[in-house]
Amino acid sequence: MRMIPMQQSFLSSPIRILLFIGVFMITTKGTTQKTTSAKQDSVIVKKIYNASLLEGKSYEWLDYLSNQIGGRLSGSLNAQRAVEWAEKELKELGLDKVWLQSVMVPKWTRGVTEFAYIETELGKTTNVPICALGGSVPTPIGGLKAPVIEVKGIEELADLGTEKIKGKIVFYNRPMQAELIQTFQAYGGCVDQRYAGAKEAAKFGAVGVIVRSMNLRQDDYPHTGAMSYGDLSNSEKIPAAAISTNGADLLSAMLKLNPQIKFNFNMNCRLWKDVESFNVIGEIKGTTYPNEYMVVGGHLDSWDLGDGSHDDGAGIVQSMEVLRLFKKIGYKPKRSIRVVLFMNEENGLRGGKKYAKEAKEKGENHVFALESDAGGFTPRGFSFDCDEANLQQIQSWKPLFAPYLIHYFEKGGSGADIGPLKKEKGIVLAGLRPDSQRYFDYHHAANDTFDAVNKRELELGAATMTSLMYLMDTYGIK
Amino acid sequence: MRMIPMQQSFLSSPIRILLFIGVFMITTKGTTQKTTSAKQDSVIVKKIYNASLLEGKSYEWLDYLSNQIGGRLSGSLNAQRAVEWAEKELKELGLDKVWLQSVMVPKWTRGVTEFAYIETELGKTTNVPICALGGSVPTPIGGLKAPVIEVKGIEELADLGTEKIKGKIVFYNRPMQAELIQTFQAYGGCVDQRYAGAKEAAKFGAVGVIVRSMNLRQDDYPHTGAMSYGDLSNSEKIPAAAISTNGADLLSAMLKLNPQIKFNFNMNCRLWKDVESFNVIGEIKGTTYPNEYMVVGGHLDSWDLGDGSHDDGAGIVQSMEVLRLFKKIGYKPKRSIRVVLFMNEENGLRGGKKYAKEAKEKGENHVFALESDAGGFTPRGFSFDCDEANLQQIQSWKPLFAPYLIHYFEKGGSGADIGPLKKEKGIVLAGLRPDSQRYFDYHHAANDTFDAVNKRELELGAATMTSLMYLMDTYGIK
Repeated sequence: MRMIPMQQSFLSSPIRILLFIGVFMITTKGTTQKTTSAKQDSVIVKKIYNASLLEGKSYEWLDYLSNQIGGRLSGSLNAQRAVEWAEKELKELGLDKVWLQSVMVPKWTRGVTEFAYIETELGKTTNVPICALGGSVPTPIGGLKAPVIEVKGIEELADLGTEKIKGKIVFYNRPMQAELIQTFQAYGGCVDQRYAGAKEAAKFGAVGVIVRSMNLRQDDYPHTGAMSYGDLSNSEKIPAAAISTNGADLLSAMLKLNPQIKFNFNMNCRLWKDVESFNVIGEIKGTTYPNEYMVVGGHLDSWDLGDGSHDDGAGIVQSMEVLRLFKKIGYKPKRSIRVVLFMNEENGLRGGKKYAKEAKEKGENHVFALESDAGGFTPRGFSFDCDEANLQQIQSWKPLFAPYLIHYFEKGGSGADIGPLKKEKGIVLAGLRPDSQRYFDYHHAANDTFDAVNKRELELGAATMTSLMYLMDTYGIK
Repeated sequence: MRMIPMQQSFLSSPIRILLFIGVFMITTKGTTQKTTSAKQDSVIVKKIYNASLLEGKSYEWLDYLSNQIGGRLSGSLNAQRAVEWAEKELKELGLDKVWLQSVMVPKWTRGVTEFAYIETELGKTTNVPICALGGSVPTPIGGLKAPVIEVKGIEELADLGTEKIKGKIVFYNRPMQAELIQTFQAYGGCVDQRYAGAKEAAKFGAVGVIVRSMNLRQDDYPHTGAMSYGDLSNSEKIPAAAISTNGADLLSAMLKLNPQIKFNFNMNCRLWKDVESFNVIGEIKGTTYPNEYMVVGGHLDSWDLGDGSHDDGAGIVQSMEVLRLFKKIGYKPKRSIRVVLFMNEENGLRGGKKYAKEAKEKGENHVFALESDAGGFTPRGFSFDCDEANLQQIQSWKPLFAPYLIHYFEKGGSGADIGPLKKEKGIVLAGLRPDSQRYFDYHHAANDTFDAVNKRELELGAATMTSLMYLMDTYGIK
């Protein structure tokens, strides 16, 4: 024990005791408040999950959207039916406001079902499954037949040069990397072949391109998706198709046996003039900060081959469910919460751009946006596009999510549709991150259908999104 | 700045400097070693995942086991074929030793396909899908027809009493709780109806029992599973069947409309004398501690309705893959590693008991056992039956697993087959914990087939198990 020097004892005992009690009270009060609110939060989060799993509507909605409407490419009759259905369903939720936001979208049609075959010699043919890439020009009537040159990527074109490419069909055959755990990374490492493959090959005189489907599985489904001709003139554009993974391996094997074989494919897809379509928006007015907006959404359009259940029917019904669950459990958000069902994510992003543009013009202060566009699989967490302070706040909520096996709260991308809302600071963007292992088995293909979505997994995703929205609304952003 | 009192400066400068350097060196050395080994571990873990995803054999093995052999109930011809196949495959891996361990198992056969119908009046019938529970006695030839009394659990029987139960079929209709996130908990909350329902109902004079399938989904598959008559005499035993979830809801609704309806079911299952079967075991001898054994396993038997791909074909091929991956990446374990493919988990656990008994008799020091018996879905982590010190060591490896999205390392059950290895201390038991949301869609039902297993998910599970085995082997247990 150390003796107290005389001068220190000038601070008289009663004052020291008061100081001590004061500090103690502040500490206790802070801890108690924190404990109480954490406890209250966990009760509300439990209510949200229970409501989603026991009285959820997301699966029933998806059943309708997938099986009664179906694939809904921008500008199609089905896309318009989806707009009308979503508006009607949101109106039935008794939100404060539901409206349509007009947006001009591209209209591309697939036409009659494509077909293709490999010709080893005249009359000896083997059929392979293909589909036109979204935005492609058609083949000439009667099809396009030409020799094939296989490459593993755009960067090989320059080495080959015009001499070896001119008059041929370029076959892009770089597979997704199976060893990447996050399958979206594997997708990102291949998708340039699909998006820019035709544009680049055309510069070397190619007459068409065939692209290996972005699929980690060996099967017979061709996977469509957006492609772009950049600034090529109409006469320079060449037709572009996806081939199934099995078809790609077959074509590659046959080319090794005989480099002289020809590929024949037939597509009569067409790009029309832009047409009017809509984002569908519903809003619950905030009780305390009505001028702070929080958005939850997905995209209402889909590709045309399947019924778009995972991409992005799941995100649509989960986003609608967020507002419905708030109503269901009687939670009145402090901030204004909007569900935005974006049009035209797949081939234009016009809906996302329009929403952000109008929000900016109106000076609406958006503080948070969450998108679900990675399939209706078991949720694992979220990735965030935000600053460090906000990420830390969000990560402090991890214990609330642990009982629901939600562990992933990391920096990363959010969602294409909400991307245009990004600003220097003052907004947190988030993307739901479901298990991604099976996503590319279905993505943009004819098997992306209702039966591939599990009810519980879909409902867990909706509850996880609602819980994050609740916490963001309760604590705001930093 | 505080002045140094005179007496403290008696410790002369050179000595203090030496002490300082010494402490610094120890700290640096420790940190460096730790960093180096963590880095080396992460390199090996990466090798393991790459090998499983790029050059894995688990999926090919499962294809054979499921599609060329199929359902393999203990004592069946298929179970014997599975034993022979597994022995052959393990021998081809070039392990140090592969052998069969004889074990007597129960032999129960389903007989011809069961059928059942609800009879509202004579001649007016509605078919419903049922299957005999494993171990049930048959109905009388021509079927069993009786009125039905619906209960939500065994505990209701005593209240109803013999008067209301005698001569009737007891219909157990308590569903799995959808709001439980961990579906095995929901299973645990219902399975007593299946396991002990017949035994308990018989005591009150029931003539048969129908049990709602342990399934979280509404569909038409009846799910079988083990049941027991306890110490009832043969004449007291009553037939027991599972009914699909849709069938259960239909029966319940019809009972509400008309409590007089009768249920008719027809089964000619049979229990035979025990027969000989085998655990299949393969071993890599440890380089440093050959007398410390680490087991990885699953169960080779399955129910007979599907082909047992998730339960537990997945666990079998993943366990075999652990040893194959060690060979593949050139890792020589310090401890002796055994893959044990247990026989008769489903209706007797004879294989697990036999293995543990023989290990004890031989004085083999088992320090770690890992079972995969929860389906071939995306792995989320493990649960552990061990003491706090070992759990802490294991949890310190979390950062190594984070890149593979493996987050779950908690206390909990391990696996039925390895359970008998449990001892006071000196062993860690672990169970692979894959995503469980869809498990009970397939469990013990005709749709538990190869197509329900995803290649990547299966391979990720095998790699996750191998990585844990590697770390347990490298660092041992506390």
